[in-house]
Amino acid sequence: MTEPINIKALVFDVFGTVVDWRGSLIREGRALGKERGLDIDWAAFADAWRDGYQPAMQRVRSGELPWTRIDALHRMILEDILKSFGIRGLSKAAKDDFNFAWHRLRPWPDSVRGLRRLKRRFTIATLSNGNVSLLSDMARNAGLPWDVILSAEMFHHYKPDLEVYRGAAALLDAKPRETLMVAAHKDDLRAAKRAGLRTAFIRRPLEYGRGKAGDLTDEPAFDFNCDDFGDLADKLGCH
Amino acid sequence: MTEPINIKALVFDVFGTVVDWRGSLIREGRALGKERGLDIDWAAFADAWRDGYQPAMQRVRSGELPWTRIDALHRMILEDILKSFGIRGLSKAAKDDFNFAWHRLRPWPDSVRGLRRLKRRFTIATLSNGNVSLLSDMARNAGLPWDVILSAEMFHHYKPDLEVYRGAAALLDAKPRETLMVAAHKDDLRAAKRAGLRTAFIRRPLEYGRGKAGDLTDEPAFDFNCDDFGDLADKLGCH
Repeated sequence: MTEPINIKALVFDVFGTVVDWRGSLIREGRALGKERGLDIDWAAFADAWRDGYQPAMQRVRSGELPWTRIDALHRMILEDILKSFGIRGLSKAAKDDFNFAWHRLRPWPDSVRGLRRLKRRFTIATLSNGNVSLLSDMARNAGLPWDVILSAEMFHHYKPDLEVYRGAAALLDAKPRETLMVAAHKDDLRAAKRAGLRTAFIRRPLEYGRGKAGDLTDEPAFDFNCDDFGDLADKLGCH
Repeated sequence: MTEPINIKALVFDVFGTVVDWRGSLIREGRALGKERGLDIDWAAFADAWRDGYQPAMQRVRSGELPWTRIDALHRMILEDILKSFGIRGLSKAAKDDFNFAWHRLRPWPDSVRGLRRLKRRFTIATLSNGNVSLLSDMARNAGLPWDVILSAEMFHHYKPDLEVYRGAAALLDAKPRETLMVAAHKDDLRAAKRAGLRTAFIRRPLEYGRGKAGDLTDEPAFDFNCDDFGDLADKLGCH
């Protein structure tokens, strides 16, 4: 922390930071597999789905695809990996429903309680590459108490493009330095920092599965390094 | 109602439909007047402030002003009417705080309970010319349980420009005909209808003060004509 912080609003990465996308997709995959008699490694399936995400956004960023919301990118990736995992015979409606597993992702155990504490003092908003309807459905399903849903969809840029961070602060009528980006991913935070925002790193050691954590070390360049949302609430003086 | 309606999302006008801007501004004005020893007709002051609103938006729409959020338009109008009402000596901070009376507007008595009922079944979102931070602050102050804050600010168009209604439906991943615009103002609803949305008129007979109601008659062209949000929830089958 380099100087006293006057924070007006907190903006949150969602996939991995607020919700456990991998555990949730595995659960949904297993339910589908049981129903359809499919013998699939659903952890590998979840990882493959997520692995398609950055390349798909890059196709939008490069201009190869026009602006495309995450629901549609997820659906394109799903089509590919259903093939590569040898899953056949799903109707369009069944695929569409499975694709909406992303709208039903479940929060980490500390997320809802931590957000409620943080909300008492700060405006809390999503700042996700997920589209608005995905984030709204997720909040309704999981009881996430957002004040505002902000999405890459509103800026037609995907994180880590700096337009997203700057655009979010502007919509919240906060200066970038009055806006705290909260994320489990250091690249997201580094981009937020380049855009002038404050940064809080949240360790999510289980995001990619047991024993597969990325870099969880404290980063002196970030304003906060935290074990979970409760820890962040403590550090920000939210009781 | 012309055909069975499959509604996914409800979008709400806010000033006058959800909150009582006039009563709230009068209350804030009286508090300021008491504190400063000002003898002002605060009802006339509130009306003058609101009267400046359409012309100010028109200056943006015409291109005379670049995109300007409502907070800044309200502040410009305030500067003028403080002069015309002979109010002098307010500091910049005092004027800024008074301007944020718009962030503290209070809901009509049925608003919070009605929105909670509607939210059980539908995604509920603001669709207001108010800026995002205004709407978020208002929701926090008044306990309005929005799923999503949508604002003209996201589209750089003010209602009744059709871009706002179409943009809102798109962000909610709903077709226009799956989106119900809820408003106390028939011109807002007529524009929403032109954009393809469904329409619900809410009678707010006290919006402009006692005995000053506009046209409160049922409009057969609208899908619903309602006495309040509870009546709308009844008509939409929300229990």
